[in-house]
Amino acid sequence: MRYKIVIAYDGTDFFGWQIQPGFRTVQQELGEALAPLSSDGLPVDVHGSGRTDAGVHADGQVAHFDLPRVMAPVQLRRAINGRLPHRDVRVIAAEPVADDFDARRGAIGKEYRYRIWNAEVLHPLRRRDCAHVVKPLELEAMREGAAQFVGEHDFAAFTANPSRVVESTVRTIHALDVVQDGPLVELRVSGNGFLYKMVRSIAGFLIAVGVGKEKPAAVTEVMDSRVRTARVESAPPQGLTLWRVWYS
Amino acid sequence: MRYKIVIAYDGTDFFGWQIQPGFRTVQQELGEALAPLSSDGLPVDVHGSGRTDAGVHADGQVAHFDLPRVMAPVQLRRAINGRLPHRDVRVIAAEPVADDFDARRGAIGKEYRYRIWNAEVLHPLRRRDCAHVVKPLELEAMREGAAQFVGEHDFAAFTANPSRVVESTVRTIHALDVVQDGPLVELRVSGNGFLYKMVRSIAGFLIAVGVGKEKPAAVTEVMDSRVRTARVESAPPQGLTLWRVWYS
Repeated sequence: MRYKIVIAYDGTDFFGWQIQPGFRTVQQELGEALAPLSSDGLPVDVHGSGRTDAGVHADGQVAHFDLPRVMAPVQLRRAINGRLPHRDVRVIAAEPVADDFDARRGAIGKEYRYRIWNAEVLHPLRRRDCAHVVKPLELEAMREGAAQFVGEHDFAAFTANPSRVVESTVRTIHALDVVQDGPLVELRVSGNGFLYKMVRSIAGFLIAVGVGKEKPAAVTEVMDSRVRTARVESAPPQGLTLWRVWYS
Repeated sequence: MRYKIVIAYDGTDFFGWQIQPGFRTVQQELGEALAPLSSDGLPVDVHGSGRTDAGVHADGQVAHFDLPRVMAPVQLRRAINGRLPHRDVRVIAAEPVADDFDARRGAIGKEYRYRIWNAEVLHPLRRRDCAHVVKPLELEAMREGAAQFVGEHDFAAFTANPSRVVESTVRTIHALDVVQDGPLVELRVSGNGFLYKMVRSIAGFLIAVGVGKEKPAAVTEVMDSRVRTARVESAPPQGLTLWRVWYS
């Protein structure tokens, strides 16, 4: 029986999503929490929609796994949450799905949010989920830059280690909004798929635009170069949250 | 030279505001951070607007202290923040004030906010600053109950250990709003002063009203009794934030 779960986590104390022996990861902790429900009592293989890096959070990460038994959604959710040792990862929802559901291959779109605390002093209660930028951000310049990311583009200049990427570096961004709420500036970006460190690279460049280090028009210029250089800095992981994953 | 500072903190890892030998407190950590600026190199006496309990947060706690030297506000703020060992407490602003400024006696009003995460599962990123209530809250009933707290009342039934209180238990609440943003329900209460555990007692009772355990009219009934009983439960500390302190 295949199940789909939606997971939220505070990534601060995790070495990211993916299992790495010797490190605490979300995938490992979920797999271990499911062990008592598996046929052999061993950790269950939990397949996520994609990896998140160390320090990156999730509001709506999605994963699938197989169990030998039929369980009601609420019962399954409670069984997992009851066995997770800490409160920094929680299953929000669970549901049975078709045997061919695949959390990674079936994803048709994702939304990420990147949070920036834009004030002299970083609020202590936001130190875990915000990047800190002291210099006042020019939001209109950031919006002008953001608009150039929207649409289908080759994002080779906005991913890390592009040489390792065998597939295409072309992706489509559906929307990239810059939303302000007091000192909190949030970048909301949705698209059909994201390359490694693509959102943090975009956020890093838009922050450079916001503080006046880059002009908004530089977005297209750098994108057209298709080469990642030191001009594009990845914004820090703690500002990033995987917000939603969509399936058809 | 007397200074006033505005302080924000994540109260999770503090045993509250007030110095208690052997425990980590906000007052102690600020006093120690100021030691290099004092005449004798010893920790400075930092006087807060009032105590906050273990686990309670602040967005705008206010305190005063004396230093033997004249310092510019920004320089002082940076000197303190640079010496605070962790990022869970920060000085947001500093300013020189008159020698008779007193953070506690001079306060003419305060605002507290009490946050509730009202959903089946507590979001991992809100586990530090929200109480968790699973049962759906009836916000209109809570607002009806909240309205009865507004105005001048004897709050003896909504404070802990009222027998220890020598002064009056009469206080004036200026406003008590119930604000919803998705699963987040926030109680915003401002008044001329608050008794020990008064906000958490009010929050606890309004939660009881929200889940249908108490009727809205019970607020006046309990208030009129002027006796604290087990019927009034204090909501947990992590939901509470000291938001603002006002001076004339």
